[in-house]
Amino acid sequence: VNGKGRTDSASEATTQRLSLLLRCVRTLEAEGVRTISSSALAERFGLNSAQIRKDLAMFGEFGVRGVGYHVTELKNRLKEVMGLDRTRVVVIVGAGNLGQALADSRNFNGEGFTVAALFDVDGRKIGSRSRTGVVIRDASGIPADLPPMGAEIGVVAVPPDAAVSAAEALANGGVKAILNFAPVTIPPIPGVIVKNMDLTFFLEGLSFQLARA
Amino acid sequence: VNGKGRTDSASEATTQRLSLLLRCVRTLEAEGVRTISSSALAERFGLNSAQIRKDLAMFGEFGVRGVGYHVTELKNRLKEVMGLDRTRVVVIVGAGNLGQALADSRNFNGEGFTVAALFDVDGRKIGSRSRTGVVIRDASGIPADLPPMGAEIGVVAVPPDAAVSAAEALANGGVKAILNFAPVTIPPIPGVIVKNMDLTFFLEGLSFQLARA
Repeated sequence: VNGKGRTDSASEATTQRLSLLLRCVRTLEAEGVRTISSSALAERFGLNSAQIRKDLAMFGEFGVRGVGYHVTELKNRLKEVMGLDRTRVVVIVGAGNLGQALADSRNFNGEGFTVAALFDVDGRKIGSRSRTGVVIRDASGIPADLPPMGAEIGVVAVPPDAAVSAAEALANGGVKAILNFAPVTIPPIPGVIVKNMDLTFFLEGLSFQLARA
Repeated sequence: VNGKGRTDSASEATTQRLSLLLRCVRTLEAEGVRTISSSALAERFGLNSAQIRKDLAMFGEFGVRGVGYHVTELKNRLKEVMGLDRTRVVVIVGAGNLGQALADSRNFNGEGFTVAALFDVDGRKIGSRSRTGVVIRDASGIPADLPPMGAEIGVVAVPPDAAVSAAEALANGGVKAILNFAPVTIPPIPGVIVKNMDLTFFLEGLSFQLARA
């Protein structure tokens, strides 16, 4: 349904809630909490308990009446539902501050994802590595380099005027999904999930909430 | 309603749609397009035309029957609705790759926002500037430095174990909203809008979509 680059806000809101829930559940697990009710979970993290129950019910019943959720089971089920029970290979185009921040970030290399390479057009960067050791390759090699890496997700972290061609190169390299951080809209690419999400979105969201507060 | 750090998914989805719409409208304006119908807008950017009309209707009628929307008027109205018709001062805690990427990004310094300072604990960074000239100050001065700057939004771009104290310092400095990129959940802070949004959210979202594709 959502594979043609179309925006699906309902599914996006669900995704964000599930991501947030997974983060909360991981925090509880790290603290040694074994079981939690949806209302305690909601209270602790400022979530909506009815919404939690509704979201989780979409994926089958796995709470226990009177006990709530087993934390580890909930975590594993969420990971499975979100496709995070396997590791997806990510490549990043653009080895500037943002690209390198993403390449080195703990969460881009944690459960579910691994960053295989950065790509850049700058000859001074090509051949060097990010702080955590991600190699920077020549962007002209993207279509040929990606298939052997098994790259599924491409991240665009280049200046705006280079974003569309970076996305096309990633698509030619066979990625199934593109996450674009450049402040331009990448148009739909057949067969590729394109998510245009530059960082201003968050600031604009806060501004909207401040304006209505 | 949303000032206590609570998650409001409906409002978040609306915010994201309005942000996306604003971006599309800016693209049209840059191309010299004067008017556009909701269906042409939807077709061009892969949006849902019924949803566009529904979202815009929330803020009063400003389309013209048979013509659609005047692009510039639509842009100005969207900016007004989103509180982007004035400039909000942003400060960023953490002058690593991510913090500096944000400080230097065109959109964090475009219409609606200006980055007044970076803060860091690293003595080698304090006193220097980011590529575009944002000064890096001593993080211990946050509560005292913020009020004279008129900082409304604080961004947390520090390692996970420093995130909660960074948020507290920002709150003590009087910010009204906090955007947290660290991969930990910052608990609700009374009177402050807290948005926990680490970058993994996007990858997880794509993973979820790929898993269901």
